[in-house]
Amino acid sequence: MQFTAPRGFRGTTANLGLKETGDDFAVVVSEVPCASAAVFTRSRFAGPSVTLSRRDTGAHRSRGMVVISRNANVATGAEGARNAEEVRRRVAGIAGVAPEELVIGSTGVIGRPYPMESIRAGLAALPLPLPEADFPAAAAAIMTTDTRAKHVSARCGDAVITGIAKGVGMIEPNMATLLTFFFTDAEVPAGELDAIFRRVVERTFNALSIDTDTSTSDTAAVFANGLAGPVDPAAFEEALYACALRLVRDIASDGEGASTLIEVRVTGARDTAQAKRAGKAVVNSPLVKTAVHGRDPNWGRVAMALGKLEDDEDIEPGAVRIAFGDDVLYPGGADEEQLKRTAGYLAGDEVVIAVDLGIGGGEFTVYGCDLTEGYVRLNADYTT
Amino acid sequence: MQFTAPRGFRGTTANLGLKETGDDFAVVVSEVPCASAAVFTRSRFAGPSVTLSRRDTGAHRSRGMVVISRNANVATGAEGARNAEEVRRRVAGIAGVAPEELVIGSTGVIGRPYPMESIRAGLAALPLPLPEADFPAAAAAIMTTDTRAKHVSARCGDAVITGIAKGVGMIEPNMATLLTFFFTDAEVPAGELDAIFRRVVERTFNALSIDTDTSTSDTAAVFANGLAGPVDPAAFEEALYACALRLVRDIASDGEGASTLIEVRVTGARDTAQAKRAGKAVVNSPLVKTAVHGRDPNWGRVAMALGKLEDDEDIEPGAVRIAFGDDVLYPGGADEEQLKRTAGYLAGDEVVIAVDLGIGGGEFTVYGCDLTEGYVRLNADYTT
Repeated sequence: MQFTAPRGFRGTTANLGLKETGDDFAVVVSEVPCASAAVFTRSRFAGPSVTLSRRDTGAHRSRGMVVISRNANVATGAEGARNAEEVRRRVAGIAGVAPEELVIGSTGVIGRPYPMESIRAGLAALPLPLPEADFPAAAAAIMTTDTRAKHVSARCGDAVITGIAKGVGMIEPNMATLLTFFFTDAEVPAGELDAIFRRVVERTFNALSIDTDTSTSDTAAVFANGLAGPVDPAAFEEALYACALRLVRDIASDGEGASTLIEVRVTGARDTAQAKRAGKAVVNSPLVKTAVHGRDPNWGRVAMALGKLEDDEDIEPGAVRIAFGDDVLYPGGADEEQLKRTAGYLAGDEVVIAVDLGIGGGEFTVYGCDLTEGYVRLNADYTT
Repeated sequence: MQFTAPRGFRGTTANLGLKETGDDFAVVVSEVPCASAAVFTRSRFAGPSVTLSRRDTGAHRSRGMVVISRNANVATGAEGARNAEEVRRRVAGIAGVAPEELVIGSTGVIGRPYPMESIRAGLAALPLPLPEADFPAAAAAIMTTDTRAKHVSARCGDAVITGIAKGVGMIEPNMATLLTFFFTDAEVPAGELDAIFRRVVERTFNALSIDTDTSTSDTAAVFANGLAGPVDPAAFEEALYACALRLVRDIASDGEGASTLIEVRVTGARDTAQAKRAGKAVVNSPLVKTAVHGRDPNWGRVAMALGKLEDDEDIEPGAVRIAFGDDVLYPGGADEEQLKRTAGYLAGDEVVIAVDLGIGGGEFTVYGCDLTEGYVRLNADYTT
């Protein structure tokens, strides 16, 4: 996908002293007012970036985002709250918008105050006025342990949608991924944008699980400045969904230590909720994740994971079908040749586990990744 | 703890061809009728061993157990059900008890039928009559990927309680651990035994989580043959609890690939259920588990894990206290010296994470282990 940018967004990136090398700060704002929508982590330990942004995005008039990377500013008490307000106010001044129009995001270590002197000095040196936004640079600036920047663009009539995201661990979003932002010059009324965004997030970021851990900082927002004029709402939703799904797949395959993207397609469920629950049980099972990593066509572990839905009394082992790729391994087991073929399939970059519960018409697909020694090593070493 | 056996239990162990070396079969039965109690996995994919045993233990007159190791006999269809019945019937004949008086347990690979010819031949060669039970040998025979046999004994007046257990992975028991059996010559009425056993299991095996995966085969049972006469119920419960806790701690520190036992003590909760939920959130977090493995005093990850209890709106970050061992790291953060001391503490075999929610008087302690490259390696290689 070629990288195309929506009109009317300005911004910059910088190193404010949080990362040893590379940018750790990004700001992107629209030149003109926007319609916006946003969703956030439901964590009880959400930090001031989330509480501040959640409060002010209710007006659906946010014009952009500012992100500090490598420090989550979580569990930092009253000082942390003051620092978040100050950073947002200063950046808003530079960008020529009201502080309430900025979504602030922060990601990284928990429990350590921002290095404010270094941040103030860095902000004072930003270029004025802000140049045209460089979305790939912004995507790179918001990375923490990501191994590659994640950005995507799609056209929708005359309009463009550009999305950036970061997130590799501590990811089982309940409302959003760690940090993801969408910018568009499409004109979409705020109420419609909010409804579309929530539907898209539910089918994409809320279908993603790397390691069952939910971040304290998850934030997702979309900013629509309307410079390209009105668009067909259905086409816009489709394009936004395509962008979000692409980012989700990028995130899953860049999961900490991950070598394989796992897609679990559940069909035949009583309803969507049950399909999602079943998919999450499978994609979150460490035994399923290690089996994929070991290229072991261990359908028994998928059955075990489904068995954990102990309150779903309509799940009957006799009605369930389990396939890896195109090979149905249960019921009936699999012969040696089939197992060998499936083991080969598991060696690929992407694995589809298909589960049919045999109950009704509910469907849901979830995304995750394998569990590797690399995940353990990275998280045993990534330090406070 | 010296190994002392309760009176009146006979049994034997053997290799029936499931393991390449070592015993894979164990039977232990009381010479006389027993009071009994049992709890089982709630998995929707429970196998015939569990369904058969669950049905027949309702009478509270089980006299002992038979275990086949290295094959779970799960997802094996009608043939699997027939095989379980046949094994139990043959062993009951050898032991001189009714089939309904035997709890049958099975653990290992899912989806493969028992090798019945080999099993029949092995059973035909067992010594008759069965000799006095050798509990350590039975504990060894029921092992799969366990690195050591787990057994324990305690006195209660004139009576003895002996427990055996196995289980290292696929363990977040909901009703029991993978397999655990307690034998006693104490005289305890069946109704009282059942109540005591359920209370003990709730505080021990149901407080254990290795990897969030719930087995299809979890079974826990206690057999009391009364040969030592009546005991004080409170003292009996205390002794049974001590035995069960010891086995739980053995299981946690022998968790697949584990190097550290993690004990999460939650206090100050609204009630016991909330305390348990909070403890499980912490002990199951892969980021907490890898932090302990990496000797990283990362209290921020504990806060993150608590934050996942998004529906517990009475959890306020400002009221929570988090300690590793005796060091309170939150609130207030920790200075370099304290972090260094805590890192040293995390290098030990056992780590206590203490969480005070600051709400009420509810308490619960859960047990787990760290997440290591060894877990990944073992489960990537352990094959269907």
